[in-house]
Amino acid sequence: MSRYYLNLECGALFSAPRSRVLQLQSSLTPCLHINLWTLFLATNMATAGKVIKCKAAVAWEPNKPVVIEEIEVAPPQANEVRIKIVATSVCHSDLYHLFESMHKDGFPTVLGHEGAGIVESVGPGVTEFQPGDKVIPLFLSQCKECHLCKNPRTNQCEVAWTRINQAIMAGVESRFTCKGKRVLQFMGTSTFSEYTVINQTAVAKIDPAAPLDKVCLLGCGICTGYGAAVNTAKVESGSTCAVFGLGAVGLAAVMGCKAAGAKRIIAVDVNPDKFENAKVFGATDFVNPKDHDKPIHEVLTKMTSGGVDYSLECVGNVQVMRSALESSAQGWGVSVIVGWTDLHDIVIRPVHLISGRTWKGSMFGGFKSKDGVSKMVKDYLDKKLKVDEFISHNMTLDQANDAIELMKNCKCIRAVMSVSPP
Amino acid sequence: MSRYYLNLECGALFSAPRSRVLQLQSSLTPCLHINLWTLFLATNMATAGKVIKCKAAVAWEPNKPVVIEEIEVAPPQANEVRIKIVATSVCHSDLYHLFESMHKDGFPTVLGHEGAGIVESVGPGVTEFQPGDKVIPLFLSQCKECHLCKNPRTNQCEVAWTRINQAIMAGVESRFTCKGKRVLQFMGTSTFSEYTVINQTAVAKIDPAAPLDKVCLLGCGICTGYGAAVNTAKVESGSTCAVFGLGAVGLAAVMGCKAAGAKRIIAVDVNPDKFENAKVFGATDFVNPKDHDKPIHEVLTKMTSGGVDYSLECVGNVQVMRSALESSAQGWGVSVIVGWTDLHDIVIRPVHLISGRTWKGSMFGGFKSKDGVSKMVKDYLDKKLKVDEFISHNMTLDQANDAIELMKNCKCIRAVMSVSPP
Repeated sequence: MSRYYLNLECGALFSAPRSRVLQLQSSLTPCLHINLWTLFLATNMATAGKVIKCKAAVAWEPNKPVVIEEIEVAPPQANEVRIKIVATSVCHSDLYHLFESMHKDGFPTVLGHEGAGIVESVGPGVTEFQPGDKVIPLFLSQCKECHLCKNPRTNQCEVAWTRINQAIMAGVESRFTCKGKRVLQFMGTSTFSEYTVINQTAVAKIDPAAPLDKVCLLGCGICTGYGAAVNTAKVESGSTCAVFGLGAVGLAAVMGCKAAGAKRIIAVDVNPDKFENAKVFGATDFVNPKDHDKPIHEVLTKMTSGGVDYSLECVGNVQVMRSALESSAQGWGVSVIVGWTDLHDIVIRPVHLISGRTWKGSMFGGFKSKDGVSKMVKDYLDKKLKVDEFISHNMTLDQANDAIELMKNCKCIRAVMSVSPP
Repeated sequence: MSRYYLNLECGALFSAPRSRVLQLQSSLTPCLHINLWTLFLATNMATAGKVIKCKAAVAWEPNKPVVIEEIEVAPPQANEVRIKIVATSVCHSDLYHLFESMHKDGFPTVLGHEGAGIVESVGPGVTEFQPGDKVIPLFLSQCKECHLCKNPRTNQCEVAWTRINQAIMAGVESRFTCKGKRVLQFMGTSTFSEYTVINQTAVAKIDPAAPLDKVCLLGCGICTGYGAAVNTAKVESGSTCAVFGLGAVGLAAVMGCKAAGAKRIIAVDVNPDKFENAKVFGATDFVNPKDHDKPIHEVLTKMTSGGVDYSLECVGNVQVMRSALESSAQGWGVSVIVGWTDLHDIVIRPVHLISGRTWKGSMFGGFKSKDGVSKMVKDYLDKKLKVDEFISHNMTLDQANDAIELMKNCKCIRAVMSVSPP
């Protein structure tokens, strides 16, 4: 109980370092703090252990607009955490499920896997989290106990493989119902909902100073691109890189290459409007394949006298994956697949590899998810990482279809939707 | 001239370290030395600067037996070395050219790229070699001057790219003629000939104590397989490996895995007769895909509770390349393509890589060719490396077709043909 009251005293900053709390307390009205916390606590006490009725964007079927519905969110069961989602953004994987893969068994579902929120209540056995913690849901778990989590060479986790049914890209169990029907939790997260329930192995506790409407982006895209450069490709200082595709993941890959000290970062996209953004994140050269008659790998090979040291495919297109591989230097080039697709196979010639290239794939940027996200949030707060620059639109959950359309038509980098008040 | 006479004095051991020469001289009859050397020198003096007429196995056209012919071998031109081939073995790449790829412009040719011999004469500008040096021809050059040779991450060499016309797998220039026709030099080497001429960037000087009828194998297969494990895959101590295909390259890969400290080495082949050989080189488990109903990657994944740490494809078959990739552990597995083919493309699913595997290719085992071959010869002499165990048949150049048939029908590991007397 003492911890509980200490939290109450500190208001929304209850988990912050003491120095930070004192510093910030002095600039705020104590009464406001207590009032906000009292409100939060009262809400929590009213909802803990009970079904919450709340608003969510339900995708009833593929290739159709989502519908804002009232859903029922069950209380967290053993080892689960119920989270009030404060903000979420739309990532291409949401669209992929809705418009491209369209797994027939993957609906109805609540999309969204790039969000941030506050723990509302916890189920039995949860010791890592408590109500009020600021958190980011993770589509890739980190149980810290399986042989994969204990292996430093991978960020895979056995729990993830049992927690998510890959065929339908949804959690095996769901705590959502709507109009008497069970609704799936896309990627086990479902951040297009005011409340969601997630296994504690797939939740990252973050610095309480973090602005949730910004760091929600660290739940997928930025970590995926940045980590692919830094962790998977292991870009070296002074090297030459090419990034294919300048969506948020590609821009984050550009930022990762720059952070790793790349001397030359070639940004490749068929939409030249994206080049200005790429410059912000560190791109030095810009190539639009439509400006050239030759295949793009020939263009890049000529530009770099033999190919780039590192290429990163951030599109999710098998032709581009091959182009990226062929653009890397014969002899030592490393190419990383970052974009996702399971609609088509990739076709390459054996000589592409035998001549000395290395081909890798990256999931969530190679980050062990809990550790990685917490660290990336800290890096953002320490101003070592750009996040705000990815946000092109601020919207609300009610505008989910508009946000989805923006992304679908490549009219935004990231649209952040406010979901619940913080 | 003083160097010349010193050589004569030392007989066939002229380039050995002084201590070794003295040690060996004491156990041999000086007269025999001088007589042998006198004979060699007399032959050399008679041939240097002149066209040599000698015996070679000419492949006049694809998919036909080779023909033992008298060919003319021109004197070495600038930066070239003319070599008396003492011994050569048959490698699968020779058969690939003759029976599989059958490039129409790649004939007539003299096959053979896994040989060893003695320098007969050198062209202008050659300082690294002199008559009498024991050498191994290299199908992959190491000029030591280009940006690739200076890059420690690759064993490619710019000279190789200009020296060999990849489309016909033959040297751009040839010093061979037969019956008035120009005959190509397969892979720039042509060791199925009593004499051949090679650019000095593609010749490795080796320890004069090396038995040429054994170390000829280090010109391709053994270095290719061994290096793929040690240099390309970088197999770690305590790891689990799978080697697909148990020809000489595969057996050398097994040996490389063992040398790197692998705990478990799974040998995979559809011919169970090869398993005993694999045991000699360090294999611990044996799998015949024909014994299983399931795809082989599922068998290996089950055997190893998730896949092997390292898999090496030593067949040159695109289906096996995919199987090897899928057999490596999701999360961190490394798969290396060692076998060669340009007849078919490989088809994989993006998720094979995105889930955390690394796919690489290896050419000549990742060895910088001159340095690597000299070192491997030394390792053999120091009994750190098995070579004799690869030799299943000893034959002569006249039996070239028999040797080719043995290899074609998988009836040998390596058949070594005596070409010229040492």
